[in-house]
Amino acid sequence: MAKIDLKLIKKLRDRTGLGMMDCKHALQETNCDIEKAIELLRKKGADIAAKRSGRETSEGIVNTYIHPGSKIGVLVEINCETDFVARNDQFVQFAHDVAMHIAAMKPLYLRPENVDPKFLEHEKNILKEQLAESGKPEKVIDQILEGKINKLYENICLLKQPFVKNDQLTVEQLQEELIAKTGENIKIHRFCRFEIGT
Amino acid sequence: MAKIDLKLIKKLRDRTGLGMMDCKHALQETNCDIEKAIELLRKKGADIAAKRSGRETSEGIVNTYIHPGSKIGVLVEINCETDFVARNDQFVQFAHDVAMHIAAMKPLYLRPENVDPKFLEHEKNILKEQLAESGKPEKVIDQILEGKINKLYENICLLKQPFVKNDQLTVEQLQEELIAKTGENIKIHRFCRFEIGT
Repeated sequence: MAKIDLKLIKKLRDRTGLGMMDCKHALQETNCDIEKAIELLRKKGADIAAKRSGRETSEGIVNTYIHPGSKIGVLVEINCETDFVARNDQFVQFAHDVAMHIAAMKPLYLRPENVDPKFLEHEKNILKEQLAESGKPEKVIDQILEGKINKLYENICLLKQPFVKNDQLTVEQLQEELIAKTGENIKIHRFCRFEIGT
Repeated sequence: MAKIDLKLIKKLRDRTGLGMMDCKHALQETNCDIEKAIELLRKKGADIAAKRSGRETSEGIVNTYIHPGSKIGVLVEINCETDFVARNDQFVQFAHDVAMHIAAMKPLYLRPENVDPKFLEHEKNILKEQLAESGKPEKVIDQILEGKINKLYENICLLKQPFVKNDQLTVEQLQEELIAKTGENIKIHRFCRFEIGT
């Protein structure tokens, strides 16, 4: 195995928060290309998250963010498997970050499955009418429509939104990273956001 | 007019938080009976609140309470007429108290009008069946039923619940007192309460 520069491993650890050996192996597999290593670790994280997604999450914390001025406030519940992880610093930081993200990005739903079907139908009809005038073939129109609906989800669904502190990640990917780091299934369970005058 | 002992006025001010002249007049009208004076001021407060209830409340604050351990959290929005009152200490204290009350008393709805009609119908039917077996006249049964439904509201509706820090008052009466003190219409607009494992 190639010897990996310790500085590079440290750099990757700082950027991903993952363990020494995970970072070393990722750099070996990608010939010390740090961006590719991050990509690889993210994929692995998603795999781990998928494997853990069936596990029961009956522990967790409720966290809050009140924006200075007290005109906007957020409450969020994040679940995990054990109280040990619920008291973990990275878990608490994640809860803080998600609450602040919600205050800033105003998601309306947690995930695409939660979007009100009437609202979705209404949006689809508007888009279809606009696209019908374009004269494009039906198959192309369907593809454009799917792209536009995904864009809509990125706007209004918390898990699909780009994370406010790092828009290279969605909130769902941030959650997957935390699952990989802690080794537990973790779920943003529910949230609520109040703003004066809305 | 009878001269009122200043100590008595101070005592009444401490208990109600109202102005010097209001307290003096209340003691004069009740022959210095402090309990009756409090009762009188409460009625006046309710009258003032009723008069102000039509005024628009577009300002306010969002407040939160996280119970130690982070397993229970509350978010509450309280509205008033001006940002001046929104930054008033008594108003902020009220918002804190209401958030803590919600954490402890687990209300399901803000007011009786918000109770899910299906749930209410279901409860009424159970009560009716129980009462039908008693053999009492229908008029009496209706009265008992009304009493039991009001008791239900006191259990599940925030505004009808006895205030956790002083069960001589409902949360609605606490709100009326604050309206009398600040001279503005004030409304608990909405709340949400998350508890891990529920």
